[in-house]
Amino acid sequence: MKLYDCKPAPNPRRVRIFLAEKGVTLETVEVDLRNGEQFSPAYRALNPQCVVPYLVLDDGTGIGEVEAICRYIEETHPSPPLFGADAKEKALVAMWEHRSEHEGLYAVGEAARNLMKGFKDHALPGPHEHAQIPALVERGKTRALQFLAELDARLAASEYIAGPRFSIADITMLVAVDFLGWLKVSLPEDRPHLKRWYDAVAARPSAKA
Amino acid sequence: MKLYDCKPAPNPRRVRIFLAEKGVTLETVEVDLRNGEQFSPAYRALNPQCVVPYLVLDDGTGIGEVEAICRYIEETHPSPPLFGADAKEKALVAMWEHRSEHEGLYAVGEAARNLMKGFKDHALPGPHEHAQIPALVERGKTRALQFLAELDARLAASEYIAGPRFSIADITMLVAVDFLGWLKVSLPEDRPHLKRWYDAVAARPSAKA
Repeated sequence: MKLYDCKPAPNPRRVRIFLAEKGVTLETVEVDLRNGEQFSPAYRALNPQCVVPYLVLDDGTGIGEVEAICRYIEETHPSPPLFGADAKEKALVAMWEHRSEHEGLYAVGEAARNLMKGFKDHALPGPHEHAQIPALVERGKTRALQFLAELDARLAASEYIAGPRFSIADITMLVAVDFLGWLKVSLPEDRPHLKRWYDAVAARPSAKA
Repeated sequence: MKLYDCKPAPNPRRVRIFLAEKGVTLETVEVDLRNGEQFSPAYRALNPQCVVPYLVLDDGTGIGEVEAICRYIEETHPSPPLFGADAKEKALVAMWEHRSEHEGLYAVGEAARNLMKGFKDHALPGPHEHAQIPALVERGKTRALQFLAELDARLAASEYIAGPRFSIADITMLVAVDFLGWLKVSLPEDRPHLKRWYDAVAARPSAKA
């Protein structure tokens, strides 16, 4: 099994943290996104989506999308459960993971990809070109900050985002908050519960992955 | 258990088809999205996200997000599996479901919500206002058609989107293709494998749900 990775990028970091929480080590191959290696003929032949992370199983099957890669790890290494343990917890984790991805990480990504020069003509990930749309920079930032405000209220009553247990949703939001730093936006000062949660998850050894 | 639903809307239909495939019947409450009932004080108190579908468990726990509601049903009614049966199949279903949602359904939604008068100031779902951005209409359509072209190639070699077994990804894409009809875009004529797949999934009794 091989994981195609890129150290500085937010999405592959989600998988690395997930693996570290599971205590699983995989052979990794670094893809140089900054120099466009994802669009090279060799990488495109491997993964036509031209993105990382990408997991290639021993039988050659390619698995893309962070959630799908993490699902494979969860099924093959169930402990500790990071997608929840019973039906209700699994549903709550799925809900908060979906919201964390869309309203947190992808909102930051919307701002970053429509702003930064490195994403010119690649305002969306993937093989197709999409022009940057300046109005999405503010929209993305606004959406991310709205979600952080909601999470602050949630975390007043819940140790982790999806409930009393650390889950994939915490990984996604840790990465989202650090990604916000690319836009020079730091964690809002008036969000004490979010700050308490961030300090706790950022201090876990997996956060260095 | 109660499912807050809206018959004409794409996202709740995903849950209704999922339930029909499982043979599960739930008590439903119709929410009148066309007249803004989702923003009423009563609905907002129930689900501050102001969206449907929304599942309320017997203990009062609210579950939002289509994937989370379907996950709860999958865990409590495992047969037939719609999220895959073993680790590899689960990962492939997760991958194709994620792609079908983002590159299929949400791409159509991007076009529809930035175009149609009924979505004025609500170009994104949720309680916060977001202005329509005309450039996203074409981007959304383009993205959806790019994904349909890729699916046509995929379906030349695979009976269903994620593999030989019908899954949640087929449900999401059936709803996405029908949603495309709102934009007066029909299934491209030059996609025979997509057409074969569409005719098969649209003929299942669950498609009427």
